[in-house]
Amino acid sequence: MAQKPSIPKGTRDFSPSEVNKRNYIFDVVKKHFQTYGFQPIETPSFENSETLMGKYGDEGDRLIFKILNSGDYLRKVDMELYASKNSTAMTPKISEKALRYDLTVPFARYVVMHQNDIQFPFKRYQIQPVWRADRPQKGRFREFFQCDADVVGSNSLLQEVELVQLYDAVFTDLKLDGVSIKLNNRKILAGIAEVIGERDKLIDFTVALDKLDKIGIEGVSKEMRAKGISDAAIEKAAPLFALSGSNLDQLSVLEKLLQSSSDGKKGVEELRFIVETLEEMGLQSAALKIDVTLARGLNYYTGAIFEVAAPDGVSMGSIGGGGRYDDLTGIFGLKDVSGVGISFGLDRIYLVLEELNLFPEAIDRSLQVLCVNFGEKEALSSLKLVSKMRSAGIKCDVYPSSAKMQKQMKYANNRNVPYVILIGEQELANNSFVVKDMLKGGQETYSLEKPEEFYKSL
Amino acid sequence: MAQKPSIPKGTRDFSPSEVNKRNYIFDVVKKHFQTYGFQPIETPSFENSETLMGKYGDEGDRLIFKILNSGDYLRKVDMELYASKNSTAMTPKISEKALRYDLTVPFARYVVMHQNDIQFPFKRYQIQPVWRADRPQKGRFREFFQCDADVVGSNSLLQEVELVQLYDAVFTDLKLDGVSIKLNNRKILAGIAEVIGERDKLIDFTVALDKLDKIGIEGVSKEMRAKGISDAAIEKAAPLFALSGSNLDQLSVLEKLLQSSSDGKKGVEELRFIVETLEEMGLQSAALKIDVTLARGLNYYTGAIFEVAAPDGVSMGSIGGGGRYDDLTGIFGLKDVSGVGISFGLDRIYLVLEELNLFPEAIDRSLQVLCVNFGEKEALSSLKLVSKMRSAGIKCDVYPSSAKMQKQMKYANNRNVPYVILIGEQELANNSFVVKDMLKGGQETYSLEKPEEFYKSL
Repeated sequence: MAQKPSIPKGTRDFSPSEVNKRNYIFDVVKKHFQTYGFQPIETPSFENSETLMGKYGDEGDRLIFKILNSGDYLRKVDMELYASKNSTAMTPKISEKALRYDLTVPFARYVVMHQNDIQFPFKRYQIQPVWRADRPQKGRFREFFQCDADVVGSNSLLQEVELVQLYDAVFTDLKLDGVSIKLNNRKILAGIAEVIGERDKLIDFTVALDKLDKIGIEGVSKEMRAKGISDAAIEKAAPLFALSGSNLDQLSVLEKLLQSSSDGKKGVEELRFIVETLEEMGLQSAALKIDVTLARGLNYYTGAIFEVAAPDGVSMGSIGGGGRYDDLTGIFGLKDVSGVGISFGLDRIYLVLEELNLFPEAIDRSLQVLCVNFGEKEALSSLKLVSKMRSAGIKCDVYPSSAKMQKQMKYANNRNVPYVILIGEQELANNSFVVKDMLKGGQETYSLEKPEEFYKSL
Repeated sequence: MAQKPSIPKGTRDFSPSEVNKRNYIFDVVKKHFQTYGFQPIETPSFENSETLMGKYGDEGDRLIFKILNSGDYLRKVDMELYASKNSTAMTPKISEKALRYDLTVPFARYVVMHQNDIQFPFKRYQIQPVWRADRPQKGRFREFFQCDADVVGSNSLLQEVELVQLYDAVFTDLKLDGVSIKLNNRKILAGIAEVIGERDKLIDFTVALDKLDKIGIEGVSKEMRAKGISDAAIEKAAPLFALSGSNLDQLSVLEKLLQSSSDGKKGVEELRFIVETLEEMGLQSAALKIDVTLARGLNYYTGAIFEVAAPDGVSMGSIGGGGRYDDLTGIFGLKDVSGVGISFGLDRIYLVLEELNLFPEAIDRSLQVLCVNFGEKEALSSLKLVSKMRSAGIKCDVYPSSAKMQKQMKYANNRNVPYVILIGEQELANNSFVVKDMLKGGQETYSLEKPEEFYKSL
């Protein structure tokens, strides 16, 4: 029975062109992950529910896709629970597995399970899809890839330095010049909260502070007051309003402001090491910018916090982020393993490269040569030629049937083929083949004895 | 609260070494898919249940993983159904999505949905995981990758020829010499059934015939009789027992046997075209073998049937298979689109390459150079050197802390690093670095001014 097919909300089919572009990004990222000494792991798409549940807050628990048990799954549900018809209470009885929600929790689980086989510090990368039952909307999907690199088992700040270099290397290679790598430290945020005496309002405070560029000191102060932050606190925080100039200038201001907070001082010290080392090393195309308003996943990170912004003029949220967390694996019983990691936002990077027209031109050239098919005998000669070219790594094909010339040429055009080869009756008699240059026009004849004279230059 | 973590039955974590080996196979397969003009697509991990259910038989329906609806999914279940506590009847009410069971049905769905954007003949490849709630056992997993190449929209036998060449190209590139590509045709099987008058017993017949090598003509005849195949039928089938010699010899026998069956004659004709064309073209390392007992997915294929066997001496089921199906997309309402495809059995190919020690030696060399860390100042010099090498594409790292030399060297050994660089106080003073060759022993000193004298040869 024929059905009109569709796919679930929030999921996507990827066409050849889209897969090629996505793989281009993955390949660049992977290449640099590897030169930086990261090793790949992969974990199962679904985990035992208890591995995931409770790790992402109540909202996360709701957004995790649960897999129904196989067989007569209702049989094991006791009568009383069944009678309640309570979905939330029922779920753990009829579902024991759930789809991966991110790559971080599975990574922590992996490290704990395989701790005896791992060389620490363990630098791992992982590029796999994750699933979230979020309401689908523009740019937000229910299935999407995450692309993470983390180091666990080292608390050296050299890792933070290297991760900034890694961002720079990847975006430079993608020709995406001018990204900003924003840097903060959780301890600086803690220090600010301590110094101004508004621990509870730290998030409101940073959200308001983040608008400084747009609404000015007056606007920011007003918003802070509206959120219940005291005038005394705002006054103490005044030096933050004046943060400007170079990273080193800003560090000096922070150092003074936070001198009474030991957390804060430690944060400034860490930030200074990272900034100074990177100033000495230099970056290729990215700009490193201290941003004390940066607070991604505040409760999660314990040290450095990173976020990458697309180049000026491209309107897009962050295209990468990460930070240091001091107790990743504690949830699975392995204490005191510090980790630091970054991730690349594939879907947004894709959109930025598309907008700026930065994908390599050849990416949609999935076929370099097509041989027109003039009939069985001619096609056999074409197939022999094509076999040789394929052995030389050239992407080529023979049109499968002796359809009308027009149809075959249309196919060549639609597949964006740069060279079309003709072996008709006459060429067969001469032991030759004709190559039409589809981009520049014109054609040339080669001998079938020496086909490499054509294809060696491709 | 610490949990002792585990993963679901039938799923696997892949270590760096395993991921690298799997990717090695994928990369070789992909390279040849591309030179043969195939283009990649990707489809969502889960589909609407109605896309998958009913496509794989009752057993398949049971083995499909279903995803529980989000929110208060029980609310919408009506009282009567709920009271029945019938899992089978409940499932469609509380689950609307299901995990991909293979790549063929999603591909058919893709072709129908995107028919207006596709250039036919459409040669697509797809390498993605699938999930089956099978009972896990040795070599059978609940999550595994499929790796398929199909051509739709062409009934030219050149496709079959090319797919055999593609198998040969991939296995040759993997250095897996001596695989057998077995070839049959559904129409020959139909012809045999017709000629011997045992349409209903065709599967029993081919299963028995397949044992000819092991149990001889007597044994095969006995088994056939036990299955209720008549003596008259067995006698008519006698020429099949004598099938031997070259492919062309076998074709002659088949031609005679099947002359009264128009289906059978057509099958022999198709087989002959494929075999003769490939004899003319030649294969690199595989052997093409007609095998009239080959009957994979009998109800599914309509023309050629392929199966690849590992080289003699390796005990392993088929490492690849495929065939032609005349109505792939009919289930979704697009009639008369013929397709032919092959797939590679990743997990088995992996085991065979492992058994025969055919993975490239360098595959576990995830780090080419490690710099020992002698302290902050020295490490900074190492990091500068490492940055240069990374820009040149070399996989290298600085040990993140100035741990004891012994610990750092142990790490280098465990990661199988061929070169260790030492930049200590003295080297820093001389502006030099020392390279220890971990494989051959010995060490050499280079200038930090000209580090490429070391790394250009890597």
